[in-house]
This record gives sequence, C-alpha cells and structure tokens, in this order.
Amino acid sequence: MKKPDKGQIWVKHGDVLVENMPTWHERRILAYGEGMMCVENIFESGEKAPWHEHFHTQITYVIEGEFDFNVEGEHQLVGPGDSVFMAPHAYHEVICTKPGKVIDLFAPMRDDFVE
Amino acid sequence: MKKPDKGQIWVKHGDVLVENMPTWHERRILAYGEGMMCVENIFESGEKAPWHEHFHTQITYVIEGEFDFNVEGEHQLVGPGDSVFMAPHAYHEVICTKPGKVIDLFAPMRDDFVE
Repeated sequence: MKKPDKGQIWVKHGDVLVENMPTWHERRILAYGEGMMCVENIFESGEKAPWHEHFHTQITYVIEGEFDFNVEGEHQLVGPGDSVFMAPHAYHEVICTKPGKVIDLFAPMRDDFVE
Repeated sequence: MKKPDKGQIWVKHGDVLVENMPTWHERRILAYGEGMMCVENIFESGEKAPWHEHFHTQITYVIEGEFDFNVEGEHQLVGPGDSVFMAPHAYHEVICTKPGKVIDLFAPMRDDFVE
C-alpha cells in the first residue's frame, strides 16, 4: 500500500497507505492533483486535529460520527452530511465527540502531505 | 431549504436545498467558496451523469453504492471509499450500478451551479 500518485485517475480505497496519526486514528491520502486533494481521516472519541491554519482553502464533509468543530473561535457540533468551509488561513481545530470519519478537501493540493 | 451562501462556514445537511435532477435522483450543493465546491449526489440503479467535461478539476469520492465510471474512455467499477481524479477538461460519465451516494468536489467552484 502506498500514497497515490499525483494525477492518478483511479484510487481504490484498499490500495492506499493507512497512516497512524499523532493525535487521531488514521489518515488516507486519496485522489489528488495540482488543483485539489482528497484526504480521508478516521477519529476515535476524544481524538483531535489541533488548532492550525494553512493557505489552502479547506472543506470538511462528515461521513460518520460527530465532531466539535472550531473555526476562528466559533464552535459547532457537526454530523453526517454536514460540511464546513474554511477560507485560506482560517484557524480551525476539531475534536471527535462520537467515533467517525470525515473527508478533508484542499485546494490547491497539500504538497506537504506527499513530500 | 436553500443553497448555501458562498463562503458560508457551517452547512448543515438538513438545511440545504434538495434538487431533483434530470438523469439522477438528487443533488445537494454543500459548502463552497471561490476556490472549491462540495456537492452531494444520490443515484438509483441505472441513473447516470452523462458524458461531459468542464474546466474545473474534479474529484469524486464514493460514500455508498457502486458506479461504472468512465474517464476519457477508460471504465472502472468504483465503490465505497474509492476516489476518482478528473483533470480539467477530462471527459467523464458515470452510471449507477448499485444505489448510492457520491461527493463531487470541484476546484475552482462551479459558478454555474449557483447562478
């Protein structure tokens, strides 16, 4: 299993590298190219992605579970089907309140995730 | 229920407009801003998104179901967790083979979806 190549058209879930993360359960880098990157993250209750920012636009889409999301100091509980928009350099963090899975989308792609 | 506003941070699934589409079941425009847009599409078996192209980079992530995806004439069956990368102007179409749900991501945003 490995991270997909840049611009790889077909990215099968079972083929991609599973990364164990310092503060949450698993990360999978999925399809990406210059303009955009799709990343799947899995959290257990109490795990978190700590307060940070980046120049990429980000959208998070919740597939399963529940998350306490903080964008620029405003908190919301989000669940399946909810999505969150983060403008470039918007500070954000997320704490998992029920075990779940999210898709994080970045535009442009996160070069730092595949270096 | 209405489409979210551009740059709206919090987009709750239950608040967004459900659109019945000519060739597939339902579309929901979710979070978006200038750089990126997230769209949820629901298909019944046999429904399709016909052969087309656009200048936006697209990634499709499959949440549920099974789809016969065609990118530039190459077919693959994709299912939950699989993702597909479409470069700008890559022709593509999708036919649903088991009822399901996908997330379509576009960079930059699809202005034509919210005009």
